[in-house]
Amino acid sequence: MKAYTEMTRDELTAEIKELKEVYKKYQKMDLSLDMSRGKPCAEQLDLSMGMMDVLSSESDLACEDGTDCRNYGVLTGVHEAKVLIGDMMENNPDNIIIFGNSSLNVMYDTVSRAMTHGILGNTPWCKLDKVKFLCPVPGYDRHFAITEYFGIEMIPVPMTPEGPDMDMVEKLVSEDDSIKGIWCVPKYSNPQGYSYSDETVRRFAKLKPAAPDFRIFWDNAYGVHHLYEHKQDHLIEILAACKRAGNPDLVYKFSSTSKITFPGSGIAALAASPNNLEDIQDQLKRQTIGHDKVNQLRHVRYFGDIHGLVEHMKKHAEILRPKFEAVEDILEEELGGLGIAEWTKPHGGYFICFESMEGCAKAIIKRCSKCGVKMTPAGSTWPYKKDPYDRDIRIAPSYPSLEDLITAAKLFALSVRIVSAEKLIGKMDEV
Amino acid sequence: MKAYTEMTRDELTAEIKELKEVYKKYQKMDLSLDMSRGKPCAEQLDLSMGMMDVLSSESDLACEDGTDCRNYGVLTGVHEAKVLIGDMMENNPDNIIIFGNSSLNVMYDTVSRAMTHGILGNTPWCKLDKVKFLCPVPGYDRHFAITEYFGIEMIPVPMTPEGPDMDMVEKLVSEDDSIKGIWCVPKYSNPQGYSYSDETVRRFAKLKPAAPDFRIFWDNAYGVHHLYEHKQDHLIEILAACKRAGNPDLVYKFSSTSKITFPGSGIAALAASPNNLEDIQDQLKRQTIGHDKVNQLRHVRYFGDIHGLVEHMKKHAEILRPKFEAVEDILEEELGGLGIAEWTKPHGGYFICFESMEGCAKAIIKRCSKCGVKMTPAGSTWPYKKDPYDRDIRIAPSYPSLEDLITAAKLFALSVRIVSAEKLIGKMDEV
Repeated sequence: MKAYTEMTRDELTAEIKELKEVYKKYQKMDLSLDMSRGKPCAEQLDLSMGMMDVLSSESDLACEDGTDCRNYGVLTGVHEAKVLIGDMMENNPDNIIIFGNSSLNVMYDTVSRAMTHGILGNTPWCKLDKVKFLCPVPGYDRHFAITEYFGIEMIPVPMTPEGPDMDMVEKLVSEDDSIKGIWCVPKYSNPQGYSYSDETVRRFAKLKPAAPDFRIFWDNAYGVHHLYEHKQDHLIEILAACKRAGNPDLVYKFSSTSKITFPGSGIAALAASPNNLEDIQDQLKRQTIGHDKVNQLRHVRYFGDIHGLVEHMKKHAEILRPKFEAVEDILEEELGGLGIAEWTKPHGGYFICFESMEGCAKAIIKRCSKCGVKMTPAGSTWPYKKDPYDRDIRIAPSYPSLEDLITAAKLFALSVRIVSAEKLIGKMDEV
Repeated sequence: MKAYTEMTRDELTAEIKELKEVYKKYQKMDLSLDMSRGKPCAEQLDLSMGMMDVLSSESDLACEDGTDCRNYGVLTGVHEAKVLIGDMMENNPDNIIIFGNSSLNVMYDTVSRAMTHGILGNTPWCKLDKVKFLCPVPGYDRHFAITEYFGIEMIPVPMTPEGPDMDMVEKLVSEDDSIKGIWCVPKYSNPQGYSYSDETVRRFAKLKPAAPDFRIFWDNAYGVHHLYEHKQDHLIEILAACKRAGNPDLVYKFSSTSKITFPGSGIAALAASPNNLEDIQDQLKRQTIGHDKVNQLRHVRYFGDIHGLVEHMKKHAEILRPKFEAVEDILEEELGGLGIAEWTKPHGGYFICFESMEGCAKAIIKRCSKCGVKMTPAGSTWPYKKDPYDRDIRIAPSYPSLEDLITAAKLFALSVRIVSAEKLIGKMDEV
């Protein structure tokens, strides 16, 4: 097919007319599909149902050191859970705190603690006139929601397939001591599915921030979430890299089992240097007597060790891979060569990032929505929900069934074609 | 026996000599007992082991409205958990948010949110020169630790068997708009086991604080934790009382199942007015996608309804009651009529409060400790851990076995006698 960008106005007008006939059919289908969030589907959740059987009324609920996991205590988590999660995160168990069910909650609390009490003896951020964060874009909306809520100014930094623009990151953090952090999803990034290159990670580890309390918020949410067994991205471990670079305290690293077992009932963790851990524990001991150790034990007994967890992730991949491939195939079939869009083809994670022509994302999502297909709102991948180019669309293929997903992806591609053609002739109709 | 206060110096000296001979025997016993924290004992935890069987790999983990509890979402908790906890707290399910495993965490977060974002549009506390809390004394050390951590000035208010000194509370909160809160354990209070009288609760509900963002932090930790079936304290429901008094937003009420099921793996809840709930949810939605719904479901399926929970609490009482009575009997036998101590005889909760002669608490606890019996440190029941009278000792009878508890209580009484007699002759020996 001829690229839209090379079509004449008449050709485009004819194309739009034809496409809208097809669109009308979708309007009559009464669809109700959701590609908006990175939610595992029921089939994926079924993979972990065995976890409901590993503890019974006959079980000994003591952990290896003899502590009764049913009772109060053990502020930083039971040791064997630290070993399992440590193997998953590629960190020493001694550098890990196990939390409750949500790594987002851990990140929120980390920012909140810095606001009220500061980091390692530095001035609490709430006492400063200005606090800023760097936000690689496109990025994760819930990260940006936390910093926005605390009144932290967000500075967008462009993402590349190698990670954030490190020239810009290095320049900004070395010049401005009001820049206190950067949000990173370093592996299978949200939403592009990019993984930071070795050079990017090393440059992060070597940063020389003007602010002594600058921290990298390293949300390794998709560390073991590969789609392929033989096409896997590799990421240099950041704590070790920072230590080698003489910057041991530079990073907070987050992870969880939310997309491994049950998203609502997993276990979350933070890895950091001994100094940072001590700082955090000084606060944590006022906040709680301890997190849910029975659930930690449940995870450990279910997986046994990291090998069990890795095998488990292969089953997730078997469910997710066909969904990603179906979307990618449809996008290629419907939009390839039209010159109106690009999209990523990640090897893992939960998202495909779709880049439309400038000024089209909102209209595309609206067209989908009018037919009952819910997408992540346009702009969500940018700070303050404002995509200045109205271009980035996050596609989340995990939740719908494969059949529904194919329908939704076709409608999506159709919507892209209509909106793009209209954009090219300069006349975009209201849906 | 003659009261110590009526003994001559010689009589007391002879008494001390005799007591110290007995004390020597305890020193040789190599004890290792813990009466320091309100921890349920293993036998109590065993009561809830059936909870490990109610969910299996064959279970449908959808809640009543069809939501898959395994997945993300449902910020404020599943409805049937709100019904169960609502019945326990005597609140409408619509006035409840279900959280994670720790009500202490909810209280911490409530203070933290007020610090960073203020309450219902009022100035964030971190922007104020001075924030103060009223602290009924003796009280709960972990409450005081939270306010101390946030640099909130704590003002002690004396407790009476009817609750805090309400003349003082009313005067202070109406005059000083920097007073933003009061910590309350209104039923079977920690550590005295007192329950607030009807008049006290009504006076709380009618408070006219100078600060619009003053809140009562109503930690109803022991609402259903009776020791006796026919001697139960009753507490007027505070949310309803505040609403009737035209003060609907005055109170945050906290509770949990920590001392009902498993302390580390229960569910916590907050009840509040619609205005307060909206305020809280606006923050909560940035902090988490939702708490552990599978555990909420586990609790609901285990208890069925409030009746199941009430029956369950009777089993706890059967284990705890003999322990409380053993301590009370020993204290009466060993110390009754000596004129050197008073103690409470609660109908529920987890603690007995012991009041020694002034200036004796630290020495008594040290004597116990030297024989291997750990008590809550002296001063813990006061803000900043400073009991100006060195008098209040919290006794936690729940954790040791009955046999160990009897040994520990006898040693404790012996230590009280030695220290008190020494105090009366003005010569206290180092242990």
